[in-house]
Amino acid sequence: MTAPLLSRRDLDFILYEVLDTEALLARPRYADHSRETFTAMLDTAEQIAVTLFQPHWKAVDETEPSFDGERVRLHPDVKPAVDAVSEAGFLAAGHDYDLGGMQLPDVIERAAICYFTAGNIGTTAYPFLAAAAANLIVAHGSPEQVDRFARPMLSGRFHGTMALSETQAGSSLSDITTRAVPSPDGTYRLFGSKMWISAGEHELGENIVHLVLARIDGAPPGVKGISLFIVPKKLVQADGSTGERNDVVLAGLNHKMGYRGSVNTILNLGEGKFRPGGEPGAVGHLIGKPHHGLAYMFHMMNESRIGVGLGAVVLGYRGYLESLAYARTRPQGRRPGSKDPSAPQIPIIEHADVRRMLLTQKAFVEGGLALVFYCGRLVDEARTGTEESNRDATRLLDLLTPIAKAWPSQFCREANDHAIQVLGGYGYSREYPVEQLYRDNRLNSIHEGTDGIQALDLLGRKVRQEDGACFRLLLKRIAQTAAAAKLTGDAECLRLGAALEQASAELVTTTLALAGAPDLDRGLANAFVYLVVFGHTVVAWLWLEQAIAAAKGLAAGAGAGADEAFYRGKIHAARFFFDWELAKVASQHGLLRRLDAACLTMRNEWF
Amino acid sequence: MTAPLLSRRDLDFILYEVLDTEALLARPRYADHSRETFTAMLDTAEQIAVTLFQPHWKAVDETEPSFDGERVRLHPDVKPAVDAVSEAGFLAAGHDYDLGGMQLPDVIERAAICYFTAGNIGTTAYPFLAAAAANLIVAHGSPEQVDRFARPMLSGRFHGTMALSETQAGSSLSDITTRAVPSPDGTYRLFGSKMWISAGEHELGENIVHLVLARIDGAPPGVKGISLFIVPKKLVQADGSTGERNDVVLAGLNHKMGYRGSVNTILNLGEGKFRPGGEPGAVGHLIGKPHHGLAYMFHMMNESRIGVGLGAVVLGYRGYLESLAYARTRPQGRRPGSKDPSAPQIPIIEHADVRRMLLTQKAFVEGGLALVFYCGRLVDEARTGTEESNRDATRLLDLLTPIAKAWPSQFCREANDHAIQVLGGYGYSREYPVEQLYRDNRLNSIHEGTDGIQALDLLGRKVRQEDGACFRLLLKRIAQTAAAAKLTGDAECLRLGAALEQASAELVTTTLALAGAPDLDRGLANAFVYLVVFGHTVVAWLWLEQAIAAAKGLAAGAGAGADEAFYRGKIHAARFFFDWELAKVASQHGLLRRLDAACLTMRNEWF
Repeated sequence: MTAPLLSRRDLDFILYEVLDTEALLARPRYADHSRETFTAMLDTAEQIAVTLFQPHWKAVDETEPSFDGERVRLHPDVKPAVDAVSEAGFLAAGHDYDLGGMQLPDVIERAAICYFTAGNIGTTAYPFLAAAAANLIVAHGSPEQVDRFARPMLSGRFHGTMALSETQAGSSLSDITTRAVPSPDGTYRLFGSKMWISAGEHELGENIVHLVLARIDGAPPGVKGISLFIVPKKLVQADGSTGERNDVVLAGLNHKMGYRGSVNTILNLGEGKFRPGGEPGAVGHLIGKPHHGLAYMFHMMNESRIGVGLGAVVLGYRGYLESLAYARTRPQGRRPGSKDPSAPQIPIIEHADVRRMLLTQKAFVEGGLALVFYCGRLVDEARTGTEESNRDATRLLDLLTPIAKAWPSQFCREANDHAIQVLGGYGYSREYPVEQLYRDNRLNSIHEGTDGIQALDLLGRKVRQEDGACFRLLLKRIAQTAAAAKLTGDAECLRLGAALEQASAELVTTTLALAGAPDLDRGLANAFVYLVVFGHTVVAWLWLEQAIAAAKGLAAGAGAGADEAFYRGKIHAARFFFDWELAKVASQHGLLRRLDAACLTMRNEWF
Repeated sequence: MTAPLLSRRDLDFILYEVLDTEALLARPRYADHSRETFTAMLDTAEQIAVTLFQPHWKAVDETEPSFDGERVRLHPDVKPAVDAVSEAGFLAAGHDYDLGGMQLPDVIERAAICYFTAGNIGTTAYPFLAAAAANLIVAHGSPEQVDRFARPMLSGRFHGTMALSETQAGSSLSDITTRAVPSPDGTYRLFGSKMWISAGEHELGENIVHLVLARIDGAPPGVKGISLFIVPKKLVQADGSTGERNDVVLAGLNHKMGYRGSVNTILNLGEGKFRPGGEPGAVGHLIGKPHHGLAYMFHMMNESRIGVGLGAVVLGYRGYLESLAYARTRPQGRRPGSKDPSAPQIPIIEHADVRRMLLTQKAFVEGGLALVFYCGRLVDEARTGTEESNRDATRLLDLLTPIAKAWPSQFCREANDHAIQVLGGYGYSREYPVEQLYRDNRLNSIHEGTDGIQALDLLGRKVRQEDGACFRLLLKRIAQTAAAAKLTGDAECLRLGAALEQASAELVTTTLALAGAPDLDRGLANAFVYLVVFGHTVVAWLWLEQAIAAAKGLAAGAGAGADEAFYRGKIHAARFFFDWELAKVASQHGLLRRLDAACLTMRNEWF
């Protein structure tokens, strides 16, 4: 099998035919770019992914990072791959020129990251976690912090992490207990232990900049008493040089089901192994104001949540392409109607049930890709649009972030499960890639806020936000797409447009029913089901966008070549998503509207 | 966490309160037994599982069987565990006394196997694969073959395998090419290569008896030209002693995602490494008549298919119990309505979304357990019932086998996925058991006929069998249960009874629509969806049986103790399965009835 990492035709379709990314070129920020520079960036990313990321993907699964009590040992091929990313400028790609960036649109940067992720998600985590941490410092740090920490991170000299969770506080960040004590020199000294820290220790760069949530002594309880600190592994001098070790000590590694290439650590702060400046505690630099740390952290978390969704999509996508390549070449069995056992076997793609598994994967991963790219496009709009389009983009992005994170984590993982099934016994073997894709992908429903947390965010916060303004805006966009479907003159688009209008109306009725719940516990009890229904409606909308673009492509005379097949496949997959998937969640509206209390009324002792 | 391997209370409930296993004691075959002997068997199985199976379950995952070019090396703890099973008499437990058996009911034997499986599914595969192979020889072999091969297998001296698949023939057995050439001494000489052979090579016993499908030279093509042979690893003399090596050679191992404890092999037959008797080819003994091999093999396969379903249930069950124990003790967060961040955290079982994941698991695994035990009960009925009840049991068993195999493989795997999610980051860590349970379970949708194959068996064969007699019988049983629900006087049972009647009527309408398809390809295109809808209806039926038994338990005055909680939990889970799960598949009837052709009309080049 020689499946490509991704389908460039599909990336281009979503970028240019669905999202009209070329329209961005008219904006001053992107004036130096062109579709050619975008393509060149994707070519470079693909090239690096194929030559430096993919080759050691299996190896880092088989020989995961190890801890000898002192150091973390990574596979030797990780560093050249990570260095190639920063050397090619991808770390700072979206930033201003004066930060060493390229002012590349976010949606193009995300498309590039797709390639690294498809090649090797574990290795990809290192540079882009560092970049996300740097982005937070750029957004909320002082100019001096930007110079001292963010610049070297964006150039690849320093690495970075986000250090939020603790053993007793994973989903519930309000319960963190890491302490920060003010020091006379204006810094803080931190004491505590952080859990689940990806890339928490390694020697890929000169330093690691941890972004640490902690409570300043005397802070109020809960989320309103959390502050954010820059805690470097090595202290950084005013001239930018690194020296003395800070008291951040690796206490151990977590051993995961998949995603093994990126080391996951437990870090102890201020346990006394090192005494920077002769004093106890890990030196930390406060970002922004005290007690506002969680708000700053959400800057990084929201970015990371879309990144998690993108990772889930890409792993699903690669599994789809692998299983597609297998199905096209693996002969097995005959059609049910075939009675001649001496007739040659047919490729399994000819079996309806295998097509079901491939179509399901296609519907999920191409729908998921449209979703995360749409979010990237919103970031660009929020950066460079008019006042109104900026505000609208921000609202939609707020609303869609939990969907972009949790929906692909759920359904593109399901796609990976189908990929295993298509390959049968081979799919279950480690000699083939699909089982690892599943294992790698399983993390995505957990980290950066579980699916359940996303569901609470969506129903408990985002849908109600600004008195429902974000939600109403989404409904308006959906209505616009349904209207556009009618203009195509394509019978299938027309039918799907009507189905989308109905799904949208159902979602409104359901949302109102939930908003009218007698109390918060009852209203939020089925939030996860709501997220799935909401997510399917959103993805159906983006599938209709794709179907419309495909119908336009066909109307423009795609001819009978590869383009025609591509467009027909898009329309068929859109139809499949509506008829097979959207129809399935329709039955859930009843459960939601009656505020089904099965989960609430079940008692602990009845299990 | 100290979760038990299984819930004995639930096993007893299904065995005695739902399936009335004690009624079997009136039959002559089981006259020597009592509920006490059944309990003693389960106690013994649990004891062996806890002391000899569970302790090395993690170890065989981390250090899987290896092949040094000559031998397969298994973990040293496998043999004592396997030996304990045969020494305690479990291998031959269901057989006649004169075969060394105990004449134990099948349903009790299966309940005992649950414990070994929950402890360590990989190690469990060795003895019970051997037992299943021996059962086939007992059923279809000559008396001399029974003495020479089956008896030592049932006593644990010999082991056994089923060797069906080949590299080019997995799902499509009609395409196997292994040749069998008649030898003047009445045996055959076999040449070929067999793929995916579990337990194909090891040194746990004195010999391994492979049951091999092959084509006698000149046989007709397809399934009507397949014969079944006994091919021992070492030749067995008339006096039962083993000597010369047969030409069955280990060509390599497959490395799996999970289920790693049971070695999976590629075996070459007659490649010439050994020349038994000086002649080329592996010596094989024909079972029964030439060209009838597949029919005999189905004896073992049907038994194994229910066994696969049982394995899937048990792995799901263990994950449920592990995640339940975790959820009860892990404090995290507060209720949505709680505004006080300094209030203590609550155990996560108090969160509605965690309860959703636990309830879903409970509904799947306890429903699945009732299904596979019901099948075991049918085996006993077919063995010892009246002429009519025997015929009915055989019909139901035929119909339910694909469901018993595929439904738990699908939904108890989904249960394992929920267990991971309940544990969050810990669930994704190999330090906790739930991720391995998922990986172990993932095989069950693949081996012994994939889910897709089971779906074709159900819709293409079993439902139509005897002009629909099996299906009609199931409908009758469902109607009886719905009628019994009305007699309980319990409002919930009444409601669920009505819902079951409706689901049954929907299934009939859908089945007739599919039977009226214009052609076989169209009629079978959505067989997998049909299997899910059918399976959910069957499991709903068995959940109603459980709810009725629980209502009886409550009516009989269970009091306010553990029994009351147990029964209330059963009724709540039944309700949950109907309202959350059965309602979900209801939407699929439309898709099936309109003979949705999305999978058929999708074209290869459109992907």
